[in-house]
Amino acid sequence: MTQFMDVHTGMKGITAQQLNEEHAKDLANEGKSGVHFIKAWADPNTGKVFCLSEGPSKEAVREVHRAAGHATEEIYEVPLTAG
Amino acid sequence: MTQFMDVHTGMKGITAQQLNEEHAKDLANEGKSGVHFIKAWADPNTGKVFCLSEGPSKEAVREVHRAAGHATEEIYEVPLTAG
Repeated sequence: MTQFMDVHTGMKGITAQQLNEEHAKDLANEGKSGVHFIKAWADPNTGKVFCLSEGPSKEAVREVHRAAGHATEEIYEVPLTAG
Repeated sequence: MTQFMDVHTGMKGITAQQLNEEHAKDLANEGKSGVHFIKAWADPNTGKVFCLSEGPSKEAVREVHRAAGHATEEIYEVPLTAG
């Protein structure tokens, strides 16, 4: 399993409840994809949201996000980690 | 303490060892800033690196990265997390 970091824009004003609801939609749509959304971080001021996931491919990550109703094309494979 | 996610570009071909060395430089430069760099993720193919930190301000995070020799201006305050 590889890890992926994806980026959403345009979420200005997002609340903690909304972030939790969107993350829950990802979890509900993982199904048999092999994708798991681990964590999400949001900046309500700029509208940026970062999601960390693991899965078999970038395409699989993209598809789960799409099915959850918040598609993004900005997905990076991040095989290297520190810390 | 607030959490921050920052983004570096132009690190194509970065290796695991290099990422660890750069992260170690952050840790060595935290000093009394109140900043702590928690984790970093890198995509050698696109050259993107994401760093998660906690600290008193965006400016304090920027300064530790600058002192460590890998400044970035793309720093987001991420007070909201899920997962």
